[in-house]
Amino acid sequence: MSHPLDRAIALRSDGENTFQGQIPTDYANFIGPFGGVLAAVMLNAPCLSADRLGDPLSLTVNFGGPVGEEPFAVVARPTRTNRSSQHWQIELHQNGEIPVTASAIFALRRDTWADLERRFPDVPPAAEAPSLASEHLPRWVSNYEMRVVRGGMGFLAQAPEASDSSETVLWIRDNPPRALDFPALAALADNFFPRVFVRRPQFVPVGTVSLTTYFHADGAELERQGDRFLLGRAWGNRFHKGYHDQSAELWSESGQLLASTHQLVYFRE
Amino acid sequence: MSHPLDRAIALRSDGENTFQGQIPTDYANFIGPFGGVLAAVMLNAPCLSADRLGDPLSLTVNFGGPVGEEPFAVVARPTRTNRSSQHWQIELHQNGEIPVTASAIFALRRDTWADLERRFPDVPPAAEAPSLASEHLPRWVSNYEMRVVRGGMGFLAQAPEASDSSETVLWIRDNPPRALDFPALAALADNFFPRVFVRRPQFVPVGTVSLTTYFHADGAELERQGDRFLLGRAWGNRFHKGYHDQSAELWSESGQLLASTHQLVYFRE
Repeated sequence: MSHPLDRAIALRSDGENTFQGQIPTDYANFIGPFGGVLAAVMLNAPCLSADRLGDPLSLTVNFGGPVGEEPFAVVARPTRTNRSSQHWQIELHQNGEIPVTASAIFALRRDTWADLERRFPDVPPAAEAPSLASEHLPRWVSNYEMRVVRGGMGFLAQAPEASDSSETVLWIRDNPPRALDFPALAALADNFFPRVFVRRPQFVPVGTVSLTTYFHADGAELERQGDRFLLGRAWGNRFHKGYHDQSAELWSESGQLLASTHQLVYFRE
Repeated sequence: MSHPLDRAIALRSDGENTFQGQIPTDYANFIGPFGGVLAAVMLNAPCLSADRLGDPLSLTVNFGGPVGEEPFAVVARPTRTNRSSQHWQIELHQNGEIPVTASAIFALRRDTWADLERRFPDVPPAAEAPSLASEHLPRWVSNYEMRVVRGGMGFLAQAPEASDSSETVLWIRDNPPRALDFPALAALADNFFPRVFVRRPQFVPVGTVSLTTYFHADGAELERQGDRFLLGRAWGNRFHKGYHDQSAELWSESGQLLASTHQLVYFRE
């Protein structure tokens, strides 16, 4: 039996770089599916293309409107193929609309000078952090195991509270555990709950409008991570007139920065 | 006489959401024009469109190949228009190729809860920081006045040196000074010299492959900045197998975070 994530991001080829997909309701968010699984679907199209060159390097997904439960088409178009890199434009079509667009860059990578400048956060092991209870949260949350080290959602606390810091540090992996690959990492990049829920004690309507992920790791490094916990760290810089940014890091258990990811989030009130 | 930036990003409407442009050689980089001015051109197309809703909120530009000195066409397509937001896909066509693609989100913004969580760096005023000499650098650099507080390029030093930190802090504005607007801010987001030149003492071939900018400020806030210096801060997280990321902040002189911006950079060796 396949993993829930594999069922959710499955695409059936329907001609040259056109694919059919459908997101199961077990990845449902408040309105439409979880954005992370949509990001994984958008990345999966060039991943499955016969024209694919190399591995994912960067991905930007723009969420324009809700995606329904019915099937959709993903159209991927390579706009430029160089010797060692390839650029893609990707669109999700459903009911005559285009609710989601994306772009991705793939590359064949080679050894160069290298350095990890960012430091791995000082944290207790995953086993010592409490699991996030998913009962009062959208269905997609139960497909992940999140162990929050610090920076949980204020409105979930016994006594809802505000915070001066939007930083969250958590251990995270698919539930049930699943070997890491690029689509799974693209989905994990959208797992951090909205920063307004860390700062403020009340629930307000929110939604990611744009999500960009830079994949620092190559395929071999993702394979070495296997199905173990990743460490995630996220924070926001400015909350202003209905939108805030979020930056985040996704680390391997062995201390490598697998991806850095950024998003712009809509919030009301 | 118009400002050099206005001449560089000028677009002539050539039918519905199709525009003709050409980048003057005074914005030349090593190969093709400075990426920041291309980012400004890509953003300028939806800015000039009769279909435009609101102001720029986010912009992602993917650089696939060099843009030549001859004219090009920019084709902008609104893929989704909501009540208060609009999504665009944008392509630059030249000689039958698509060297640059972009996506942008525009929005009508309204007052909400707001907070600036990031802190303004502790720096001396612009007048006390030395100007970056542009003599040995590509032509575009002379269109900016950069006053480097810390984190210059190692190979420009009398005795070229490596650094453990990729952080740069600098004051920056157009040269000659020009009132800030969204295209100018989009260009400024790509002004930070490559992080490998801060870390390493030698010159190597480099190029931005993907650039994302989140505009925190609305039009009124940009207007208040006028033509004064912006404070920029940039750093990299991981350098690995030919690519590194860069995150950066662009601050108004009065201490507001106008934009946060991220990019993925190719480097050789």
